[in-house]
Amino acid sequence: MQSRRRARAPMYSSVNGPRATPPAPARPAVPTAPEAAPAFAATMGAAASAPAVGGQHPLTRQDENSRLRAYETGIKDAFAHIVPTLKRIAARQHEPDFETWAQEEARKALGVTLPADALRDAWIGHLDMRAIFAHAYFETFKAFSNGYFETDPLETRRQSPTFRDFLLECGFHAMNVTPCSDGRLAHTISYVLRLPMGAVRRKSYAGATFDVEEALQRWSSVELSRFREGVPNLADAPTRYLKVVAYHYSSRDPEHQGCAAHGSDTRKAATAGLEQLRAFRKAVESSYCCGASIEVLLIGIDTDTDRLRVHFKNGAGEPDLDRFVDAGGLYRETQRLDADAARARIRDAIAKPSDGGLAPEAGMQRLMARLIENNLSQIDYVRAYEGEHYPDAGHEERFIGVGTDFEEIHLRNLTYFAFMKTLEEGAPNLDVGIKIFRKLNVSHGLPIPIVLRFDFSGQVPGARERAIQRCARVAEAIGARYPELAEQGLIQTYWTVRDTSRPGPIECVGGSLPGLRSCA
Amino acid sequence: MQSRRRARAPMYSSVNGPRATPPAPARPAVPTAPEAAPAFAATMGAAASAPAVGGQHPLTRQDENSRLRAYETGIKDAFAHIVPTLKRIAARQHEPDFETWAQEEARKALGVTLPADALRDAWIGHLDMRAIFAHAYFETFKAFSNGYFETDPLETRRQSPTFRDFLLECGFHAMNVTPCSDGRLAHTISYVLRLPMGAVRRKSYAGATFDVEEALQRWSSVELSRFREGVPNLADAPTRYLKVVAYHYSSRDPEHQGCAAHGSDTRKAATAGLEQLRAFRKAVESSYCCGASIEVLLIGIDTDTDRLRVHFKNGAGEPDLDRFVDAGGLYRETQRLDADAARARIRDAIAKPSDGGLAPEAGMQRLMARLIENNLSQIDYVRAYEGEHYPDAGHEERFIGVGTDFEEIHLRNLTYFAFMKTLEEGAPNLDVGIKIFRKLNVSHGLPIPIVLRFDFSGQVPGARERAIQRCARVAEAIGARYPELAEQGLIQTYWTVRDTSRPGPIECVGGSLPGLRSCA
Repeated sequence: MQSRRRARAPMYSSVNGPRATPPAPARPAVPTAPEAAPAFAATMGAAASAPAVGGQHPLTRQDENSRLRAYETGIKDAFAHIVPTLKRIAARQHEPDFETWAQEEARKALGVTLPADALRDAWIGHLDMRAIFAHAYFETFKAFSNGYFETDPLETRRQSPTFRDFLLECGFHAMNVTPCSDGRLAHTISYVLRLPMGAVRRKSYAGATFDVEEALQRWSSVELSRFREGVPNLADAPTRYLKVVAYHYSSRDPEHQGCAAHGSDTRKAATAGLEQLRAFRKAVESSYCCGASIEVLLIGIDTDTDRLRVHFKNGAGEPDLDRFVDAGGLYRETQRLDADAARARIRDAIAKPSDGGLAPEAGMQRLMARLIENNLSQIDYVRAYEGEHYPDAGHEERFIGVGTDFEEIHLRNLTYFAFMKTLEEGAPNLDVGIKIFRKLNVSHGLPIPIVLRFDFSGQVPGARERAIQRCARVAEAIGARYPELAEQGLIQTYWTVRDTSRPGPIECVGGSLPGLRSCA
Repeated sequence: MQSRRRARAPMYSSVNGPRATPPAPARPAVPTAPEAAPAFAATMGAAASAPAVGGQHPLTRQDENSRLRAYETGIKDAFAHIVPTLKRIAARQHEPDFETWAQEEARKALGVTLPADALRDAWIGHLDMRAIFAHAYFETFKAFSNGYFETDPLETRRQSPTFRDFLLECGFHAMNVTPCSDGRLAHTISYVLRLPMGAVRRKSYAGATFDVEEALQRWSSVELSRFREGVPNLADAPTRYLKVVAYHYSSRDPEHQGCAAHGSDTRKAATAGLEQLRAFRKAVESSYCCGASIEVLLIGIDTDTDRLRVHFKNGAGEPDLDRFVDAGGLYRETQRLDADAARARIRDAIAKPSDGGLAPEAGMQRLMARLIENNLSQIDYVRAYEGEHYPDAGHEERFIGVGTDFEEIHLRNLTYFAFMKTLEEGAPNLDVGIKIFRKLNVSHGLPIPIVLRFDFSGQVPGARERAIQRCARVAEAIGARYPELAEQGLIQTYWTVRDTSRPGPIECVGGSLPGLRSCA
């Protein structure tokens, strides 16, 4: 969560190319400033922020970066084309043959069919641009969502089995990551950590303060499946359930662009993560006997550069706020080595902490080394495509997501996510999102597009109907909470559900636009 | 749930005796009408309603009935004394020495200390009788709630281990019962079925349509504890989890006093129960592999006489709506036999269904026989203390319970219960309750007392604070939903939480009355 924002550029820019051909990824930028930050920082504030020198890191996977960039650009461009296209369409709404021309234009530029009724009646008064804008956003969302589930563009399904095996070798039968629900952390799994969703589970919460009761339920469901089904391994195998919390901070503007849920205070954000991990572990240990426990890991992400820090543990077995390995430092320290030597140095930095403190267990060492190595590619990704740091330090989200985690969302600053099962519980989260979008959209006369998502298990009779009811109930509560926006059409909702018991796309089941009411 | 009501007698009656000495239980009434209903009815409508002849049934446990009656009378009298006592107090509010006298009077008649501030300021204007009324109700609730957890008046803790063993012998490692949340079913476990809470779990829902997802979670938690801890038995023991649904009907006025959630249609109520059991079983079977399943049982309760019917299964292993043993019929058929012969006849009626249909498995036969035998005591309880049928066929609840199941509530028509975690989800249930209490209380100028309850596990860090927040959030939502009542002080809330990880009483953590705000 982050409270201040910069001027919004991309959304209202005049980028105008056809959607089908995203720009080719730029060549890596060549930074010039030298640096000398240590791979291991003795205190929280000690990580240096100077960029690395020279070309790419030897461990950076350029092909992967190109693929990820094409994916990101394709989707973000699709959203960026909406406003310019609709402007052109709005300008010609009273011309002859407008209807056919506008549909053609929207299809060509956005890959979207506009609501025929709205176009047909334009000559009477004027086009309902708010409804058309929301419609285009929802269709664009739906297209990329379908793409995710149908074509596996991030290769998560392809990579999952291998990573599951690796996790087991490291001694973990499950890995569950909680980043902050801030849009700048939405790419944590697939980009910053380069891990395959599926093998890894994500549960985003504001301030990364996850719901301990929910986590306990998830834990017990994983353990039961080990006992009953031997999945992913037998219950007596000496592996552990790994819970990871990812806090975040801003190296460029730590006092303003950090985590808003913790007042942009890095130490506070890290402490909150630590406390939540401690609470979860205690909950498992005291709710179940016979040595029940979990393994925990605290990581930190710099939202300006995506560099990762991975915390060591202290003597009490808890993440140590002051001791961590920093991928940015290791990047610079190893960038002139060959791949093998760089890997060896990373392994050493983890196995032999420079302060002589406690080293992690062997399996955790392997996992930490993997995370650091993966993050090196992301550091180069940001350097290559964004420069020394992201240009959008603040909020630039395109829409608000409400409900359960959207498995298909993996792009930075695409979505402001408000986790909730009911608005009664989730209102504080959504209030923040609405405030952000009052500036981003409402101040320009544009509506706030809200996509609702509730997952269900198709194996549970009636579960789909209950998920749909939940969409309708939350949407109604949203309308009641922000009546002045809803009445002016400045909030539009799009209701989606997904059967998590089988692979497959989302299903649109309703929404505030006339055309959506019938999609149920 | 039930929609119509009769005139409310007890609450505004002039019963006036001191609270400390509940009236001794009356001797059993001697009904006169002969009867001839069969023990087994071939169709839903066939159960006869004539009362039994002669004295008590040989299997009736008179001592238990006396104990249960004393408990019921003690609590209901305590509530019944509130209005007459407050009337006396109101009448003398401008007399000298009022304060001391009123406290003395309240303590003597109700065992309650009135809020000193309210009494002290009475001379200036007039007593805030609404606040004092709610205060007295909440204190009376608290006293009986504490009594339940402290002195085990229904002997549930004493009887639980024995019944757990019996259940295991019958082949069940858990028994979870869902009655309707209608106040006339609140005594299902301890009175109608005579089972010890603890060994048996209760989850009340409107119309007995329980939450399948929640039930699935509960099931998996029970199974995990068998796997991990061997509690109550090892996971490979060939026992099953038993889910019971209790629907209800009215033998005297089936079209008006049945289950309101199902339009007072007995068959609809039973069908809904069957469908929910079917959904739960399917959810378990398809969510988990390796032969995961549960056992299900459908029972029906006549809210006029508390007689029980227990359904047989059909060839597909599902409860058969048309085939059941009826405790009322078996009562009459066996009441002139000695205890052993009566038991043998009951066993026979279950093992050899009179229509020649499928008999239950041996373990289920034992459990059914136990339920029928237990219910014979309850049939005599109603006959002895209420007559041919309950005089309060409709709603006579004393307060509304909101939140999770109140473990300590076991009295008929004491509480209208609205299950919810948020009002957003539970509003339809509470709307019905508020409608009932507009007639019961608001029409007399009295406020609606609402007790909130959220349970938590003290073993989960932060869980108590989250339960308290939930109380505050739901209470706020209640105020926002019924503003005209809340503003006039016609809705008063009392917030309670309870740590279910250890034995112990509830904790008051706040409420709408000034004195309660500080009890957090």
